[in-house]
Amino acid sequence: MRVALLFAMQAEAAPVIRALGLVPGAHSVDERFGFVQHHGDYRGLQIVLATNGHDAVHGVDQIGTQATVLNAYLTLTANQPDLCINAGTAGGFVKRGGAIGDVVISNGVVRYHDRRIPIPGFDAYGVGSYPTLVRPEIATRLGLREGSISTSDSLDATPECHARMDAHDTQAKEMEAASIAWVCAKLAIPFVALKAITDLVDGGLATETEFLANLHLASERLCDRVVAFLDLLADEPQVFALQGDA
Amino acid sequence: MRVALLFAMQAEAAPVIRALGLVPGAHSVDERFGFVQHHGDYRGLQIVLATNGHDAVHGVDQIGTQATVLNAYLTLTANQPDLCINAGTAGGFVKRGGAIGDVVISNGVVRYHDRRIPIPGFDAYGVGSYPTLVRPEIATRLGLREGSISTSDSLDATPECHARMDAHDTQAKEMEAASIAWVCAKLAIPFVALKAITDLVDGGLATETEFLANLHLASERLCDRVVAFLDLLADEPQVFALQGDA
Repeated sequence: MRVALLFAMQAEAAPVIRALGLVPGAHSVDERFGFVQHHGDYRGLQIVLATNGHDAVHGVDQIGTQATVLNAYLTLTANQPDLCINAGTAGGFVKRGGAIGDVVISNGVVRYHDRRIPIPGFDAYGVGSYPTLVRPEIATRLGLREGSISTSDSLDATPECHARMDAHDTQAKEMEAASIAWVCAKLAIPFVALKAITDLVDGGLATETEFLANLHLASERLCDRVVAFLDLLADEPQVFALQGDA
Repeated sequence: MRVALLFAMQAEAAPVIRALGLVPGAHSVDERFGFVQHHGDYRGLQIVLATNGHDAVHGVDQIGTQATVLNAYLTLTANQPDLCINAGTAGGFVKRGGAIGDVVISNGVVRYHDRRIPIPGFDAYGVGSYPTLVRPEIATRLGLREGSISTSDSLDATPECHARMDAHDTQAKEMEAASIAWVCAKLAIPFVALKAITDLVDGGLATETEFLANLHLASERLCDRVVAFLDLLADEPQVFALQGDA
């Protein structure tokens, strides 16, 4: 079985690269964009792990949907995985029971909360509502919180963003999942997102401060659950029913 | 010389396809995404015209940056143009002298006004500020308004969006230019945007109503100026200095 693991930031991916013993890809998909790939075999699973690399102008990780759409497309079409996992960090919500270090697994649909096109048809198109794999047993077995994941291209959120996240009972606010889910929907590749909470959107602290303070901790916690996810996939693939066999 | 013309909507592109006598491309770049290409020779210029096609779920044009990033990448890498033109419609601003039917040409930089990442380095990365071709003679010769073009994934704008557009003296608010400019910057392809004003953001009418009412008119006006742009390129390529010869 082939599995694609997509991360936006190198810091989010580094513990997983180490834990799985992955090695840098011999060929970059398109070196002009700076995307990075690692490959390896983990317990019989063929893994490709892609990160968005760094922006040549600003020297920062190429977070957000713009780089992610293209990296996802290039990685997925080149590797034709049976499952695509988007792993990363996210903001949680105290008012919906979230806590730092929780790992949220997507609950069936990922949406955008920053795309408003108030014309019939275009409105729903903008929100996206892309499908994700739903296997409640996975959350139970791995101690994950199944919840609504919502994407925007901003680390903060406007009142309009909050209204949309409230309406969708968002558990994890992040910056990439919907863009990968869109590519997966078009390519008919099953998609799941795993997001570790680094900051509490409604917790009273500045997101950027809390995000940076907890990025390392959350990335380690994320790694632990990603490896457990892959172990379950290697040991009991029937739980995932990727071939429609359940 | 090879020229790529990128439009988001079929209605925006249709008059140009007719005027240039372009024919549907024999091969779609990736039919799973629904992107559409037309090709043709216009006065010695090899033209590829790409539109984003329709969303299979909602039946609407695939506007916005998500589809545009991928369509731009696939079109530009497959055709290796000497110049990429993003043509389309946009919102203008009464307070900055805008009027329905104006055609704005990018003035050197295109930005995002909906991407806020308040961490040093990431903030500027999110805004983008991608370069565009600057040839003031083109605007003078073609009666275009040279101005700041700004992109988001929403047809409306929040107070945060307005503050950013005001700070950058935005003349045209639209939904694709920055995403194409990003791809062009990475691929080292000169980029220019031409945007016809369909609605006045601060004009007191609902954007969606005004946009739909003026889409046809603005698309015809846009077509007229795109063809004039190509005529100038065919007749006096030195004005464009694409080979660094000016």
